[in-house]
Parts: sequence; structure tokens; C-alpha cells
Amino acid sequence: MQKSILITGGARSGKSALAEELTLGLGRPAVYIATAEARDDEMRARIARHRDRRGPDWRTVAAPIALAQALDDSDGEAPRLVDCLTLWLTNLMLDGRDWEAATEGLAACLARQRAPVLLVTNEVGAGIVPENALARAFRDAAGLVNQRIARVCDEVWLSVAGCPVKVKPR
Amino acid sequence: MQKSILITGGARSGKSALAEELTLGLGRPAVYIATAEARDDEMRARIARHRDRRGPDWRTVAAPIALAQALDDSDGEAPRLVDCLTLWLTNLMLDGRDWEAATEGLAACLARQRAPVLLVTNEVGAGIVPENALARAFRDAAGLVNQRIARVCDEVWLSVAGCPVKVKPR
Amino acid sequence: MQKSILITGGARSGKSALAEELTLGLGRPAVYIATAEARDDEMRARIARHRDRRGPDWRTVAAPIALAQALDDSDGEAPRLVDCLTLWLTNLMLDGRDWEAATEGLAACLARQRAPVLLVTNEVGAGIVPENALARAFRDAAGLVNQRIARVCDEVWLSVAGCPVKVKPR
Repeated sequence: MQKSILITGGARSGKSALAEELTLGLGRPAVYIATAEARDDEMRARIARHRDRRGPDWRTVAAPIALAQALDDSDGEAPRLVDCLTLWLTNLMLDGRDWEAATEGLAACLARQRAPVLLVTNEVGAGIVPENALARAFRDAAGLVNQRIARVCDEVWLSVAGCPVKVKPR
Repeated sequence: MQKSILITGGARSGKSALAEELTLGLGRPAVYIATAEARDDEMRARIARHRDRRGPDWRTVAAPIALAQALDDSDGEAPRLVDCLTLWLTNLMLDGRDWEAATEGLAACLARQRAPVLLVTNEVGAGIVPENALARAFRDAAGLVNQRIARVCDEVWLSVAGCPVKVKPR
Repeated sequence: MQKSILITGGARSGKSALAEELTLGLGRPAVYIATAEARDDEMRARIARHRDRRGPDWRTVAAPIALAQALDDSDGEAPRLVDCLTLWLTNLMLDGRDWEAATEGLAACLARQRAPVLLVTNEVGAGIVPENALARAFRDAAGLVNQRIARVCDEVWLSVAGCPVKVKPR
């Protein structure tokens, strides 16, 4: 009964809270697979805030780069929540990895999981075209990652001001 | 028969026109609660454009900061339209106010209204992460305000190219 | 049996692929009306990528500015796909044209077509307000073009991570 669900939305649109609720609805305790790296104080504060909101129902695993490995390693009974793909892509790009190959690897990995996987990602492409070429490249890559992973997921949700909108299947 | 409705969307996505239509559908004349402050020519032009589109069905009240007070003062028979929460948040932040406390105050205020309240807000979090720390803080705050107010509203609408999409309740 | 369909979404959200699929579902071969101008290498690469994805089912016409003319000239049996309105608006603005008049002209042109027309556009207004006044003006104009054209279209779709969401009619 493998099931994979992608949750997307803008910044502070309630994606993580929705993802946590959906994950615990599929089984508890659950595994939280964190892709964030605490590179600066702002990020450390955000990680701490997210961790505070989660309760004792969660076991946390860090996977800033080796996400497919973390999914394979944690595959059992418990649902897994990956938070989030956009930070994972950032880490891949900053580390000079082949993000397209990694995305294909993740898509294949999702198909072989037995326990459910929920993935949080971000909408970053609905603003004005960035002046910065790197920001444009990241924006394009993030959109392509979202499309590729959405294609292999059973469900895709968009969070709007905390309100969940199911966009796949409809 | 209190009813509160939040209308969100990107810039020039038809939010205000939708909000005005929904408001007048709940009763006329209506009260327009403007949070805009005419800080520069661009803003003055935008305020004038919006005011031109509205007809004699509207009585206008200015509330750049004291929004809950304006709602309490205008609570009677007529529906109220607040346009918009994003500018209200901007005013709070520029004025050094505690926007989180003000948002809680607004949520409580909405719960005690007797006449309907419609609120326009903006999606500002679906672009690339801003390089500017203040812009990032504003983007986060705007997302949190939208979530908090959406939670206490009976209905939430997303305007896409002028097409209304109801995201709560579904 | 004229039919016009607007497809919107963020960058790399799967708009073009969706539009191509919907167009070929209405008849083949189809006409691809490209508004892109190859101003730099990044744009040339993007044009080539899009062209590679399209097959021999497509005849391509370039219309960076004279879009209504290209629609009138190609009106027959075959469905037409315009990709995209945001680049068309960019071209109009860079060329110093009256984009509002051109948009009214396009709306009128769409109403007189006999064969179907699909139009791709971009969501550019859901990020933080740009610091740059020109970017703000473009963002406003793009939103207004989307609203105006959506109003005369029979259908409007929003693409989210490659998942089509019909927003008109609902």
C-alpha cells in the first residue's frame, strides 16, 4: 500500500503543517527526513521553529544530499515526511552535483518504496523573472523537480493560505 | 449572520474586483475600509484607480493601522470590505508595531463582528527567495498573516487571472 | 466551433506541455505561434528546448509583436497555440508600443476566430513586490493582460507542478 504525496505552496503557506497532519494520518510514529542544513542563524531559527511544532510522534533523520538513500534506509512500516525538496535541490546545486540525475534517482526511489512518503516543496516560479542568472537557473530547476516528482506521486496538494487544494488526482 | 471571507491572489489578479462584487452581493451600500497610505505618486495613482472603479454604493473609511477598531466602529448592517491586509502589515512593520499581536487582535475582532467582513490580501511567497533580509521577513510575515486570518474566515478565495477559485470550504 | 483556452502558471510549471497536449487534442497538424525573440543565448537555448519537444505535428509561425495579425492569417481548420503572452507583452513594452490597445485588439481578434486558439501565459505577480519600478510596471501589466484575455476565453487552466487545474468554467 505504497502511497506518495507531494505538497507544494508558497513561503509560509502552511505546507509543512498540512504535510505533518497528512503523514500522521497514515501512521505514527513517523519519520521526519530533514533536508535543511543550518548554514546561518536565520536557517537555524527556522529549523528550531519547525522542530518545536512537531511532537514526540516524530523520529528525525538528516538528509541534505543523500535523500534516496535515506528513503531506502527508512522504508518499513512508518510513513516518511521529506521537508523539503527545494532545500535538497539547493544543497545539490551548491555542492556541484548533477541535480537532474539525482531527481531521476529520487523518482525511481519513490516507485520502489513500500511505506508512504510525503514530500514538501515550494512554488518559486510565480514572481517576476529574477535579474540574477543563478536565481533564474534555480527557479527553472525547482520547477522541473516539482514537475518530475509530481508525475510519480499519487497525490499532489497545493496549500493556499493554509487551505489545502488537491490538484492531483482531480 | 456574521460571515467573513478572505480573497487572495497575485498582483493584478482581479482580487479587488472580485471582493467588491462579493461584498455588494451581501448588501449595499457597503463600507470600504482602506489600509493604503498614499506614501508616493505610484501609490496615489493606484488608490485613485481603485476609487474610480468603485461607485456611489461605497462609503470609505481609512484604517492604515487601527483596523480592528475600524471594524468594531463600522459593525452594523452593512458589509465591510478591507483592502488590503498586505498593506496593513506593511504599515504595522514600518511603524514598528507588534504585527503578530495585531494579527491575533484582528482574528479575535473578526470573530465578534455581526455584519459581514471581506478581506483582500496578496500572495507574495511564490517567487524566488528574496536576497534582501527585510523582504524575506516581510514575505514570511505576510504568509503567516494570511494563514491566521484564513483560519478564522468562513470562506477563502484565490483569484487566478480574474477567475475566482474557492479554496475554503471545499 | 471556435474555442479559446488560456493556460497560466509559474515558470517551469508544465504550461507549454499541457498547452501542446490540449492543442493536438483539438486537431493536428497544429500551428505554433511563437512570440519569443532570440535576444540572448539563454533565450535561444530555451526556444531550442521547446522546439525539440514539439514534433512534426507542428507548423511554426513567429509573431513577436503582430499577434492578432498572425491569428487572423492562420485562421482556418487547424488549432493555434500562442506561446506566450508574457513574452509578447515584453516585446510590446521594449518596442514602446501601446500594450493596452494591443491587448484590446487581441481580445477582439480572439472573438472573431473560427479555429481554436490556445494561449500560454505566466503568473508573475505572486512574489514579493519588486524594488525595480520597471519590474513593478511589468508585473502589473502582465496581470492585467492575463485578466483581460481570461475574460474572453472559454476555458482557463492553471498548471501546478505539471498538474492541470481548470479555473474557468468551474
